[in-house]
Amino acid sequence: MTTSNRQFRLATRPVGMPKDSDWNFAEEPVRELAVGEVLVRILYISLDPAMRGWMNDSKSYIAPVGIGEVMRAGAVGRVVKSLNPKFTEGDCVLGMLGVQEFALSDGKGLTRLDASLAPLPVYLSTLGMPGMTAYFGLLDIGQPKPGETVVVSGAAGAVGAVVGQIAKIKGCRVVGIAGGAAKCDYVVNELGFDAAVDYKVEDVKAALGRACPKGIDIYFDNVGGDILDAALSRLAMRARVVICGAVSQYNSTAPIKGPSNYLSLLVNRASMTGMVVFDYASRYSDAGRELAGWMAEGRLKSREDIVTGLEKFPEALLMLFKGENMGKLLLQVATD
Amino acid sequence: MTTSNRQFRLATRPVGMPKDSDWNFAEEPVRELAVGEVLVRILYISLDPAMRGWMNDSKSYIAPVGIGEVMRAGAVGRVVKSLNPKFTEGDCVLGMLGVQEFALSDGKGLTRLDASLAPLPVYLSTLGMPGMTAYFGLLDIGQPKPGETVVVSGAAGAVGAVVGQIAKIKGCRVVGIAGGAAKCDYVVNELGFDAAVDYKVEDVKAALGRACPKGIDIYFDNVGGDILDAALSRLAMRARVVICGAVSQYNSTAPIKGPSNYLSLLVNRASMTGMVVFDYASRYSDAGRELAGWMAEGRLKSREDIVTGLEKFPEALLMLFKGENMGKLLLQVATD
Repeated sequence: MTTSNRQFRLATRPVGMPKDSDWNFAEEPVRELAVGEVLVRILYISLDPAMRGWMNDSKSYIAPVGIGEVMRAGAVGRVVKSLNPKFTEGDCVLGMLGVQEFALSDGKGLTRLDASLAPLPVYLSTLGMPGMTAYFGLLDIGQPKPGETVVVSGAAGAVGAVVGQIAKIKGCRVVGIAGGAAKCDYVVNELGFDAAVDYKVEDVKAALGRACPKGIDIYFDNVGGDILDAALSRLAMRARVVICGAVSQYNSTAPIKGPSNYLSLLVNRASMTGMVVFDYASRYSDAGRELAGWMAEGRLKSREDIVTGLEKFPEALLMLFKGENMGKLLLQVATD
Repeated sequence: MTTSNRQFRLATRPVGMPKDSDWNFAEEPVRELAVGEVLVRILYISLDPAMRGWMNDSKSYIAPVGIGEVMRAGAVGRVVKSLNPKFTEGDCVLGMLGVQEFALSDGKGLTRLDASLAPLPVYLSTLGMPGMTAYFGLLDIGQPKPGETVVVSGAAGAVGAVVGQIAKIKGCRVVGIAGGAAKCDYVVNELGFDAAVDYKVEDVKAALGRACPKGIDIYFDNVGGDILDAALSRLAMRARVVICGAVSQYNSTAPIKGPSNYLSLLVNRASMTGMVVFDYASRYSDAGRELAGWMAEGRLKSREDIVTGLEKFPEALLMLFKGENMGKLLLQVATD
């Protein structure tokens, strides 16, 4: 019996927000496994702002997805067939498996997961790339010290929520920037941030002035644009700005908005440093252990926002850019 | 007999390029010295792009010059009268003495110079603030390693020329960005840079691509604006961008142009760090010794562009913003 595999392939490079017509929702049979290969039934697909960048044909930290290729995505699934001695039928695995129902893999880049330690969605969230990004970006680049003020944008998102919680664990004052009362309430009352700024209704610069009376020591930026500028205007001396992403700019058809207030780096002897989580791959397992420990102690909460059905992929992806998700956005493709 | 002192005082805060009417060219008698004071006859006044910032009433690394106050400026001069035991008539001194013919000082911030070691103008140039700025900005923030590619803007200016020459001493490939054939010729054929880009006639991004085939490891920025953006587009992995100034923006009446290509910091895991030379005051004397040593060995050349006559101050200052000076711009106020 041949297994059928539904897939989202990139049809055209989007201009601005991705449209339905930028995708080709195809179906094809899964071919026979070659020796060394495994077949994975995908359960959860990670939806990340970075995916928008992968759709552009421009130089970046990773090659663009080719036209006609299955859209790149991190995912977790279960091995349903294996001709690879390292994997057994029934194994839970994590990898860049793509936006589809089944993935063939030669096992490279595929990691076996222990589903008894954490629910599978968490391996795409706080114990996955977003958690690693938060961990290394904050700790390695930001270098937080107790008593310092840490501000994070996209605070209710997958990365921002972890950044803020780790900063609290490290003894910092933490202010989150998020859109809407529900998200602001979540980061303060659920995640324990000291304050939140609602960029949809507040003057962010003024609000940061009130929330950060001693200035910002670390600003972890996921959004770019006007919010980055507002944060730059509030830096403390020797502040560190971590550039993790710029979700406000990814769908812009105008030139990227550069930070007008970048000379605040000079006035405050501050630095702005870019990071890409893949550079820290050799330390993922250590970070995962520490993050899991904090979760077990109840000091680090993980929240996933799960949309069901592969066919929902195009509209679910847009939720990221409209700020409609709270916590890590995942697409559930099958039930385990 | 009373000594008369001509002075430039700030009359109004300029909008855009400073105009003659922004200055009050006043004359007043020098008052009697109090105990502990010295009277200095000013010989050379330093003209620096940073002076434009000091004229604005905005938060910066130093308080603005008040309306009605003598314009702040570094200067060298000779002590003509002393009621301070640390200084003797005839001493050559350096300090923030202002745009005037005579300065009274209580001795704080006044440094005695050895005029036999270097001509006095050099103490405002390669052995002064511009030299210190180049030294600490390049070596402490940039951290050059042999074989790396260093690009500096304002390359024929007081800071840029020293940055490039130190980078050559450290074994780097050095590319200068300057305006006009004469300056480009100067940095390559006089100062020994490997290449120069003439921003007035070349496409800077394309020219940097040709001049830096392995990308830019250190970009030392004195100018901001489109040139900063062009340099950002050519960064190598783990590049360091030193933000020293932004002379292209100081007289702008529009909002500062932020660097649109700042996400190159992310793609290349690069950093952008601001610096203010005053932070390194405790190490000036060590740096001065090393710079003087390189000068004595003929490895570091110092060039001063000297305008004569205190009354020329307003137009001489504008030369900095029009790119009309080559080497450190000084105003000679008296002959020694």
